[in-house]
Amino acid sequence: MKFELENSVEVKDKIRSFRAAILPIGAVEAHGPHLPLGTDNLLATRLADKLAERTESFVLPPFSYGQVWSLRNFPGSINVSNEALIRLLADIGESLYQQGFRIFIMLNGHLGNAVALKEVARMLYERVPELKVFYFFYPGTKEITAQVREASAAHSTYMHADEIETSYMLYLADEYVDMTKAIDGAPQIPIEADFTPTPWEEMTSSAVLGNATLATREKGETIIERSLEVMSEIVLRAKSSL
Amino acid sequence: MKFELENSVEVKDKIRSFRAAILPIGAVEAHGPHLPLGTDNLLATRLADKLAERTESFVLPPFSYGQVWSLRNFPGSINVSNEALIRLLADIGESLYQQGFRIFIMLNGHLGNAVALKEVARMLYERVPELKVFYFFYPGTKEITAQVREASAAHSTYMHADEIETSYMLYLADEYVDMTKAIDGAPQIPIEADFTPTPWEEMTSSAVLGNATLATREKGETIIERSLEVMSEIVLRAKSSL
Amino acid sequence: MKFELENSVEVKDKIRSFRAAILPIGAVEAHGPHLPLGTDNLLATRLADKLAERTESFVLPPFSYGQVWSLRNFPGSINVSNEALIRLLADIGESLYQQGFRIFIMLNGHLGNAVALKEVARMLYERVPELKVFYFFYPGTKEITAQVREASAAHSTYMHADEIETSYMLYLADEYVDMTKAIDGAPQIPIEADFTPTPWEEMTSSAVLGNATLATREKGETIIERSLEVMSEIVLRAKSSL
Amino acid sequence: MKFELENSVEVKDKIRSFRAAILPIGAVEAHGPHLPLGTDNLLATRLADKLAERTESFVLPPFSYGQVWSLRNFPGSINVSNEALIRLLADIGESLYQQGFRIFIMLNGHLGNAVALKEVARMLYERVPELKVFYFFYPGTKEITAQVREASAAHSTYMHADEIETSYMLYLADEYVDMTKAIDGAPQIPIEADFTPTPWEEMTSSAVLGNATLATREKGETIIERSLEVMSEIVLRAKSSL
Amino acid sequence: MKFELENSVEVKDKIRSFRAAILPIGAVEAHGPHLPLGTDNLLATRLADKLAERTESFVLPPFSYGQVWSLRNFPGSINVSNEALIRLLADIGESLYQQGFRIFIMLNGHLGNAVALKEVARMLYERVPELKVFYFFYPGTKEITAQVREASAAHSTYMHADEIETSYMLYLADEYVDMTKAIDGAPQIPIEADFTPTPWEEMTSSAVLGNATLATREKGETIIERSLEVMSEIVLRAKSSL
Amino acid sequence: MKFELENSVEVKDKIRSFRAAILPIGAVEAHGPHLPLGTDNLLATRLADKLAERTESFVLPPFSYGQVWSLRNFPGSINVSNEALIRLLADIGESLYQQGFRIFIMLNGHLGNAVALKEVARMLYERVPELKVFYFFYPGTKEITAQVREASAAHSTYMHADEIETSYMLYLADEYVDMTKAIDGAPQIPIEADFTPTPWEEMTSSAVLGNATLATREKGETIIERSLEVMSEIVLRAKSSL
Repeated sequence: MKFELENSVEVKDKIRSFRAAILPIGAVEAHGPHLPLGTDNLLATRLADKLAERTESFVLPPFSYGQVWSLRNFPGSINVSNEALIRLLADIGESLYQQGFRIFIMLNGHLGNAVALKEVARMLYERVPELKVFYFFYPGTKEITAQVREASAAHSTYMHADEIETSYMLYLADEYVDMTKAIDGAPQIPIEADFTPTPWEEMTSSAVLGNATLATREKGETIIERSLEVMSEIVLRAKSSL
Repeated sequence: MKFELENSVEVKDKIRSFRAAILPIGAVEAHGPHLPLGTDNLLATRLADKLAERTESFVLPPFSYGQVWSLRNFPGSINVSNEALIRLLADIGESLYQQGFRIFIMLNGHLGNAVALKEVARMLYERVPELKVFYFFYPGTKEITAQVREASAAHSTYMHADEIETSYMLYLADEYVDMTKAIDGAPQIPIEADFTPTPWEEMTSSAVLGNATLATREKGETIIERSLEVMSEIVLRAKSSL
Repeated sequence: MKFELENSVEVKDKIRSFRAAILPIGAVEAHGPHLPLGTDNLLATRLADKLAERTESFVLPPFSYGQVWSLRNFPGSINVSNEALIRLLADIGESLYQQGFRIFIMLNGHLGNAVALKEVARMLYERVPELKVFYFFYPGTKEITAQVREASAAHSTYMHADEIETSYMLYLADEYVDMTKAIDGAPQIPIEADFTPTPWEEMTSSAVLGNATLATREKGETIIERSLEVMSEIVLRAKSSL
Repeated sequence: MKFELENSVEVKDKIRSFRAAILPIGAVEAHGPHLPLGTDNLLATRLADKLAERTESFVLPPFSYGQVWSLRNFPGSINVSNEALIRLLADIGESLYQQGFRIFIMLNGHLGNAVALKEVARMLYERVPELKVFYFFYPGTKEITAQVREASAAHSTYMHADEIETSYMLYLADEYVDMTKAIDGAPQIPIEADFTPTPWEEMTSSAVLGNATLATREKGETIIERSLEVMSEIVLRAKSSL
Repeated sequence: MKFELENSVEVKDKIRSFRAAILPIGAVEAHGPHLPLGTDNLLATRLADKLAERTESFVLPPFSYGQVWSLRNFPGSINVSNEALIRLLADIGESLYQQGFRIFIMLNGHLGNAVALKEVARMLYERVPELKVFYFFYPGTKEITAQVREASAAHSTYMHADEIETSYMLYLADEYVDMTKAIDGAPQIPIEADFTPTPWEEMTSSAVLGNATLATREKGETIIERSLEVMSEIVLRAKSSL
Repeated sequence: MKFELENSVEVKDKIRSFRAAILPIGAVEAHGPHLPLGTDNLLATRLADKLAERTESFVLPPFSYGQVWSLRNFPGSINVSNEALIRLLADIGESLYQQGFRIFIMLNGHLGNAVALKEVARMLYERVPELKVFYFFYPGTKEITAQVREASAAHSTYMHADEIETSYMLYLADEYVDMTKAIDGAPQIPIEADFTPTPWEEMTSSAVLGNATLATREKGETIIERSLEVMSEIVLRAKSSL
């Protein structure tokens, strides 16, 4: 189902049949000592493969560069602006519509991209209203995560290289995890961080926002599978309403 | 040497030691019946791996979306604008500089990106003059290609899904080539095509711009290795002059 | 403390003394039958007056036009784009810095502006790093609101013309509330609404996202005063660190 | 007739009946020792109220930030760029059209905004040609002003904090004028000022461009009432031609 | 003194000596039956030659495309946007500064360009503050024109293909004037034209805004020479203050 | 056939009859000691006159400012950005279409403009698809030039102030050539120049990229006449297909 491995002659009918394209979107970003810089890319790509299988959709080549303002000063992070991200993803969406796709799923593995993706979706809503656009960042996992987690969350919104994200990796891409280097990095996040620009080096030196040592494959599986159910349902509902 | 598989703790010193980052840039684009849509991405990525090895450089995650104006109406092509491409790649370059890189190589597998890449390089020349930026599209292969090729070129500049590019694929990514479907597609290209916007559907229905059946792994190897030599030399010279 | 009522001769020293400027930002947007279109403007302005008093800050003339994409098709809503909003607010921030201000508080009464304000704050962080920029949307009220509210929230993030916002109005601007028209409007919000562009007319005809009839001045006072404490503390801490 | 005090349920029919919306546009700008920074906002708002009454139009919340390049270095001035101003006002105009308005009056109290407003009107002429857009800066007052004024004008175009503008304030917002501080500030304006960028601090320290001590409420009333007549006539003519 | 006829070897010292560059800016625009479309270009170029002589300045190749919104629907008019005009002229100004020029004179023959030129001058004031930038549109001619003219002006600001502009042509470029076709075209201009976008085809079919039959070479000479004096004085003063 | 010398009354029918407009585009750029800065403008303009004659087309006023990034630091060069160039030329093209033209020929005398012109042509292809747009830079001369030239080319693409371009000038504008100053300037161009931004001052001090002393009027005539034939044929074919 990898779109880029299709050839131009046969792909036309498949597009008409599948109608849905999944774009894995991540980032290159510091994820502590135990996870690779490409963690968000790996998660998005693996998740996309699973979602594609369950919904008979195409997976596009991953988009591996994201907006990592908060962590841009950590070694290895590559930051792109919201503005550039928005333009490029909107171009991709519009082109997919021209190709015959009617459902465009931006499967996001990096929270910092959320603002850009929502803006892209709204742009496409105006430009090509017949294209149904979704932006997913582990949807439907709030309650199950609360049940599964052992340590409390360092922040109400951010999840980064912690118990939860590390568990995702253990389930989806454990060959890239080195649990011997996992640490408990939960920092004190000042209240101001929610109301003023706050580079994360002001609050953590490891970029680990929680207790990564508590991560397990099982936790990852439980949450990810729930999210996959939610996403599958939404995509299939969209497909059946075309 | 895959940058995104490094972790943030160890990568800092490696950046200081390597100094050079290679970004494979391709496109999703119709390449006839025998080659996949992601041909340019596959070529750029494989070439980047080889160049990285010879020059001790990092390979960044591939950038898989390119400007494919001419072929955008062919099934499977995904087109993005020069403008969006330029902004995003310039952001990546600037961020690499902030991370300590001093050489940024855009290894391009798709001719349609050439204009954008040159503009990016000039932008970065102003913004971060200490970053040496290269844009490569099979450099140094003009003469060797003329020697190696059996069929004459369909066009003085364009090379697409033909004897040459198919040979590249046979050398670098033959698992994705289906030579049983290769055709001789050399079209008559009207002289106007060089002087007025001309979507390729006006001159070819296959997107094969030459005789792909003449492709061999050996031809590919001969040209690609020459190009690798040229690129290696340039990158190593740049490194030694830092 | 209204900045625009000062004269140019005397204002110079006052800026040096106060150092902080509060910009009330709202929107013109449908708020059901019992609340005026300018609800968010009224709330932001009244709140700004109170915060200014407690922190010895200037209140700037309100910025009354916001991004109301979701409700833009409801009668009376006036929508402006994030892009335009960002540029204009960034200009204001930069000009305030030139005038000698060192703290710029965007006091936001409309959730739809949140994305733009965060982007503005980051822009100013680059352009005029010595200016401390805050964006507030009822900060510190999550827990107290959960305690105070009688009806459960229609949505985890959105609060609109409901028990809570109507209570705010009853505390801060009750002369503009007509409780005889208040309704219980809590709609069923489809799960898709969080993942795809969803104009609110698809889920509500009243734009009331909760049970407005439960609103009381006391509820409003309890939550607003808590938020004022949090904001005052942050602003005073920022002032003392100049 | 204040638009933002209407509620969404009732406003729909009123828009259909009124058809015209007036946006008061001013600036925060130094106006000497006797007038407040918000003079242009106060004038535009009061004038808008009067025009609305005579033409049965809605008054929108004021837009209080203008392009004050010439005076931006005076204490208290807040400057925004033409570019930002244009985008935002064009968004407002387009949204008003979507809401059913067919006449959009930008009632301008600050000359520095004139260029932006004219550009906005032309943009809207293309985007929403059925919307009639007016930009007014005291129209129809040239002759009557020449008759009324005692001191000669400091400049053929600029009118700032002088006999005339102070008279406007005495008529429309005298509670904010302190005539005991009024001065005769008429500077020598170098001929170059009309042909090269000339910040006003190069020619005046008070920002008073004339003899403010000669201002009277009667002068203000005479000119303002004339202008109101002219504007009313134009708006009513436009309404009757819908 | 034509800059483009210099060669690169000798021009360097001349730039250092002259310091001033004059850019004639006009438009291609309908000018009635008796004047050519390029009237504004011809006037700007001839005027530039005279000014260059009197001030020892270089004349740059003319910029022949202007903003002709009002007349864009007349046969032969070529319209460009303010936005494009501003960017391009600002680029030219910045490049002139890099080349060593310290005075940049935009000699404008078309009123519609005035807004763009002023914006360009302000941009350059920020970007290259050491470059003195002037924008001239027949400066210093108000009084002398009032004395010289026989017919009253059709409009307080616009002067187009009328007694005055035709006189300019008779003085500066009479080989392109056909007085046998000159007409008295003074239209009734509705008062709304100053306050709402008004394409000129709504008020004139000839584009002649006055009585062109009254034009004489003498009138042209009188006004033009006065303007040349004013401009020369300003430029020479600027040169002596470098 | 000079468009700007037409008057508005008569031009309408002529546009309908001719249908084609030629815009000469050049640059102000260092061309060594023997050629003027405006060489590209002179060549484009003279060539345009000849092409217009053979194809019954209008010649527009020349556009004399180009993108001269490589030579921008040489005395006398004036550089404008691709971005500004693209916007302005696209505006001109769109306006020509509104005027009734159906063929727009950008006759380019400066290679550095080629990228911008191609982008303009593609933009217009979207905006006004019925306008046929051509960009010509000495088309059809590759083979004849190889035959005619005595010295080998300094670079496979660049041709600048050398045997060839000087020959063009001797044929088209010899009154501006000073052959006594012509030099043999062929520099060693480093291989990197094709792959990284390389200002020409790094490889030549004269800006002469070849042996200008070998230039003759005959060589120029031979090549230019061939190019004129090619262009005429293309334009006439386009005309006959309208």
